[in-house]
Amino acid sequence: MNLSIDDVLKLTGGKLLNTAPEVQISGVASLDEACPGDVSFLGNEKYFKDFLATKASVVLVPPALPQHPEGVCLVEVENPSLAFNALVDHFMKAANDFTPGVEEGAVVHPTARFNADKVRIGPNAVVEADAEIGDGCDIGPGCVIGKSAKLGEHCKLHARVVVRERCILGHHVTVQPGAVIGSDGFGFLLNKETGCYDTIDQVGIVVVGNHVDIGANATIDRARFGRTVIGDGCKLDNLVQVAHNVTMGNHTVMCSQSGIAGSTHIGKYVTLAAQVGVAGHLTVGDQAILAARTGAISNLDGGQAYFGSPCSPYKDAMKQYAALHRMPEALRELRELRKLVDKLQQKIDGQD
Amino acid sequence: MNLSIDDVLKLTGGKLLNTAPEVQISGVASLDEACPGDVSFLGNEKYFKDFLATKASVVLVPPALPQHPEGVCLVEVENPSLAFNALVDHFMKAANDFTPGVEEGAVVHPTARFNADKVRIGPNAVVEADAEIGDGCDIGPGCVIGKSAKLGEHCKLHARVVVRERCILGHHVTVQPGAVIGSDGFGFLLNKETGCYDTIDQVGIVVVGNHVDIGANATIDRARFGRTVIGDGCKLDNLVQVAHNVTMGNHTVMCSQSGIAGSTHIGKYVTLAAQVGVAGHLTVGDQAILAARTGAISNLDGGQAYFGSPCSPYKDAMKQYAALHRMPEALRELRELRKLVDKLQQKIDGQD
Amino acid sequence: MNLSIDDVLKLTGGKLLNTAPEVQISGVASLDEACPGDVSFLGNEKYFKDFLATKASVVLVPPALPQHPEGVCLVEVENPSLAFNALVDHFMKAANDFTPGVEEGAVVHPTARFNADKVRIGPNAVVEADAEIGDGCDIGPGCVIGKSAKLGEHCKLHARVVVRERCILGHHVTVQPGAVIGSDGFGFLLNKETGCYDTIDQVGIVVVGNHVDIGANATIDRARFGRTVIGDGCKLDNLVQVAHNVTMGNHTVMCSQSGIAGSTHIGKYVTLAAQVGVAGHLTVGDQAILAARTGAISNLDGGQAYFGSPCSPYKDAMKQYAALHRMPEALRELRELRKLVDKLQQKIDGQD
Repeated sequence: MNLSIDDVLKLTGGKLLNTAPEVQISGVASLDEACPGDVSFLGNEKYFKDFLATKASVVLVPPALPQHPEGVCLVEVENPSLAFNALVDHFMKAANDFTPGVEEGAVVHPTARFNADKVRIGPNAVVEADAEIGDGCDIGPGCVIGKSAKLGEHCKLHARVVVRERCILGHHVTVQPGAVIGSDGFGFLLNKETGCYDTIDQVGIVVVGNHVDIGANATIDRARFGRTVIGDGCKLDNLVQVAHNVTMGNHTVMCSQSGIAGSTHIGKYVTLAAQVGVAGHLTVGDQAILAARTGAISNLDGGQAYFGSPCSPYKDAMKQYAALHRMPEALRELRELRKLVDKLQQKIDGQD
Repeated sequence: MNLSIDDVLKLTGGKLLNTAPEVQISGVASLDEACPGDVSFLGNEKYFKDFLATKASVVLVPPALPQHPEGVCLVEVENPSLAFNALVDHFMKAANDFTPGVEEGAVVHPTARFNADKVRIGPNAVVEADAEIGDGCDIGPGCVIGKSAKLGEHCKLHARVVVRERCILGHHVTVQPGAVIGSDGFGFLLNKETGCYDTIDQVGIVVVGNHVDIGANATIDRARFGRTVIGDGCKLDNLVQVAHNVTMGNHTVMCSQSGIAGSTHIGKYVTLAAQVGVAGHLTVGDQAILAARTGAISNLDGGQAYFGSPCSPYKDAMKQYAALHRMPEALRELRELRKLVDKLQQKIDGQD
Repeated sequence: MNLSIDDVLKLTGGKLLNTAPEVQISGVASLDEACPGDVSFLGNEKYFKDFLATKASVVLVPPALPQHPEGVCLVEVENPSLAFNALVDHFMKAANDFTPGVEEGAVVHPTARFNADKVRIGPNAVVEADAEIGDGCDIGPGCVIGKSAKLGEHCKLHARVVVRERCILGHHVTVQPGAVIGSDGFGFLLNKETGCYDTIDQVGIVVVGNHVDIGANATIDRARFGRTVIGDGCKLDNLVQVAHNVTMGNHTVMCSQSGIAGSTHIGKYVTLAAQVGVAGHLTVGDQAILAARTGAISNLDGGQAYFGSPCSPYKDAMKQYAALHRMPEALRELRELRKLVDKLQQKIDGQD
C-alpha cells in the first residue's frame, strides 16, 4: 500500500518537476512534521518557510513556484490541498478496503453463517459454530469469533480481536487489535468452609450497539446474567476495562486506561477521560464529564464536570488541589498564629 | 449454542402455552433486565409486575397463570426456578465442554506431551517443543504454549492466551483471552559509558498455583532468576500487571487494572481493589485490603484496610480526604483568624 | 529447552556426586529462592546455610564439600559461579535462538520481502502484502505484520504481536507478547447536526527507533498525520499506552500501566514510573522523572523529579502529602485556636 512516485502522479494527476528518486512513500504529513518517506503539500504560501526546510521526500506544489528546497521531489498540481486529500484517501482506502472471501489458514466452522461474497475472514482467523457475520464485515488476521456470536453489517475487526460466545455486535462496529469482548465477569465468593473463592458463573453476554469503536487491547466482560451493554455511537479507547453488567448509554466516550466496575450504569454523552475509575453499582448521569484520573465512588449527577479521587465537582476539586499545594505553608502559618495567640494570652493573663 | 424453543422445551420438560415465534435464545436474564433473545422465569409472584412488562422472548412460568404479557412465548413448568437453572447450566456447559483432539490449523511440535484423547488443542493454537499439558485441559483458539511450558490438569485457556517458555501452571487454572504469562521482566541498567540501557536477562519463570483465575489481557512477567509466584486460589482480573519476582500468597484477589512492581511480596487473602498500585521490593501482610486506586509505597501490615495514594489506614485516609474537601474553607478561616488576632494584638498594644 | 542431569553435566563439565534423580531442570535460582526443578550453585561459603536448606533439585558445588543436604543432586565443578553462568546462557540462548524459515501455518503474502534463510516466521504468523522484514528477525507464533510494515534487522517479536500497516520498526527492537503497534489514534469529533461522533481518519504511522523494548499488551497508536515516534533505546513496559502523534526522545523509560495522551512530546532520558499519566499537547523536558502514579496536566521542565496528581516538584509534593496526612489534626487545631481567640476577644472586650 506504499506509493511510488508514479502512483503519486497517477493519484494526483500531477507533473514531476525534477528527477524522481526511487522512494517509497509510506505516509502523509504536514511540511514541518514530515520525514523522509512522507509526502506533504504546500497549500498556502504562509507555509513557504516550512516548505524550504521540509524533510518530506515528496511535496505537492502549486504552479509557478519561485524557489524550492534541495533533494525534495516536487509534484506540480493545480490544487495541492485537494491532491493531498486524494493521497490521504488512498491510504484510508488501502487500510479499509478488502476483498471478500475466506483467506488462507482461517478455520471456519461449517455451521457459521455469512456470505463469503461479501465478508472477509482474514488469514488464520477462527469462526466457531453458529457464529453469524453480517455483510460487509472484515474479520482481520487471527481474530476469534466464538460460538453463536453475532456481528451486524460492516464491522471491521482488526487483527487478533476476540469476540466470545453469544456476544452481539451491531452494525459499523470497529475494533482495534487485541481487544476482548465477552471475557468472564470477575465474580467470586469466599467459601468460608473451604477457605477458597468459588466462581460465580458468568452466563450473560455483551451487547455492543451500532457505530461503536473499541480500542486496542480493551476488555469488556460479559454479564453474570443478562447483558453488559455498550450503547450506539460509544467510543472506547485502548486498554479500557468494562466490567460485567455495566450499561453505557449512547455516544459515551471512554479514554485510555479507564475502568468501570461491575453493574454501574453510565448515562449517554458521558465523557470519561483517561485513567478514570468508576466504582461498582453506581449511576453516572447523562453528559457528565470525568476529567483525567478522576475516581468516582458515589453516584454522579449528569451535566457537570468532576475531578479528583475521590472526586468532587470540577471547580471544587481544583480549589482543593490548589489548597493542597498551599497546605505546607498554611500549616506553618497555623503554628505561628498559635504562638502569637499564646503570647497574647500570656500578656492578657499578665494584665489581669 | 443458542437455543431454539424446542431446545428450551427439551431442557426444561416444559409445555408451550402459546404459538412459538422463530426465536433464537442467546441468553438468560431476570425479568426486568431481559431483552429480546433472552429467556427469563417467573419464580415468585412478587415479580408479577416485572413479568407483565418484561422484554424477554421466552418466560418459564408456573402452572395456572392468571394473566400474561403480549408477544412473549410462555413455557409452563412445575418449578420455574429449577427449570431456569437447567438453562443456565446448558449455557455454562456449552461454554466449557469440549471435544478432545487437535483441531484444524493447530501447530503442535512432535515433542509436546499430552493425551490427545483427553486434551483439546483449539484451532490455530501453537504448542511448542517439550511443552506438557495435563489431562482435561482445553487450549483455546490461537493460544501459544511455549517451549517446555507445563500445564496441570483441567486448565481452561480461552482464545489467544500466551504461556511463554518453561512457565508452570497448576491444576484448574482458567485464563481469559489475551492474557500473557511469562513475558520478560522489565529490567534495564543504564550503561554510563554508552548512554544506553543494557538489558538484564530475565531467565526465571512464572509459577501459577492451582484454581487460579487470570483475566483478559492481564500480564505476568517471568522472574529475573527463580520464580514469579501466583499462589493457589488467587483471582486476577482483566488488565492487571504482575512484575518480575513478585510472590503472591494463596487466595489473594487483584481487581482490574491493578499493578504490582518487581520483587514485592503480597501475602495471602489480600485484596487489591481496582486500579491499585504497589511499589517494588515491599511486603503487604496477609488479609490486607487496599481500596480502589490506592497506591502503596511502603510495607503494609496485614489485617487492615488502606486507602489513598500514597496510602494511609483506611479510616485515616477517609478523614484526610474529608479534610481536603474542607481545605479551601479552612484556608479562608485561617486568614480571617489571622486578621482577628492582628486586631486583638493592636488593641492590646494600644492598652499597654 | 528444559535440562536433564546429563545436559547439566555436559554444559558445566561437572561430575555427579550422588545418584541422579530423573528430574527436569526448568530454571535457575539462588539457593534460598530455588524450588524443586531449579538448579542453583554454591559460589561462596557464606551461603553454606542456604545450601543446607535449599529446595533446589540440583546444586553446582565446589570440590571437597564437607557436608551436604539430603535429596539434592550435587554436581561438582571447579568454579560453581562460572558453571552456573553457562546454564543461564543456555536458557537465554534457548529462548532467543531460532532456526530461520517459514514455519507451519504461517501465511505470508507473496509480495512480502525478507530473506527466508535469515528470518524466522513463526507458526501461524501472518505477513501481509509488501511487508519488509530485515535479516535476523524472529517473528513469533501468531504475530501479524501489516501491509507495507517495515522491520529493521534483528527484531524479536514474541507471540501474537501486531504491527499494523506501514509502521516502521528499527533494528534490534524486542516486543513482548500481545503488544499492538499502529492501532488507530483515538480521534472523534461530535457532529452537532447528527448528535454522533464522526471518526477523524488516522492516516499516519508509528516509527520505533533502534534498540527499543516494548512490553506485553502495550499499545502504541498511529498518528493522525505524520508519525508517532518512539526514540532509540526507549524501554516501554507492559500495558503502557502511547497515543497518536506522541513523540518520545531517545532512551526514555515508561513503566507499566503508564499512559501518554495525544500530541505530547516527551524528551530524552525521561523516566515515567508506573501508572503515570501525561495529558495531551504537553512537553516534558529531558531527564524529567515522574514518580509512580504521577499525573501531569501542564508542561514539565526537564532535569527534575515530580510527584502527585496533579503533580508538583517531588519535594513539594512530598510536603503536600505529609501536610495532607496532618490535615485532620490541623483542622482540629484551627477550631481550638478559633475558640481560644474568641475567648481572648471576650476577655479584652470585657476589659474595655
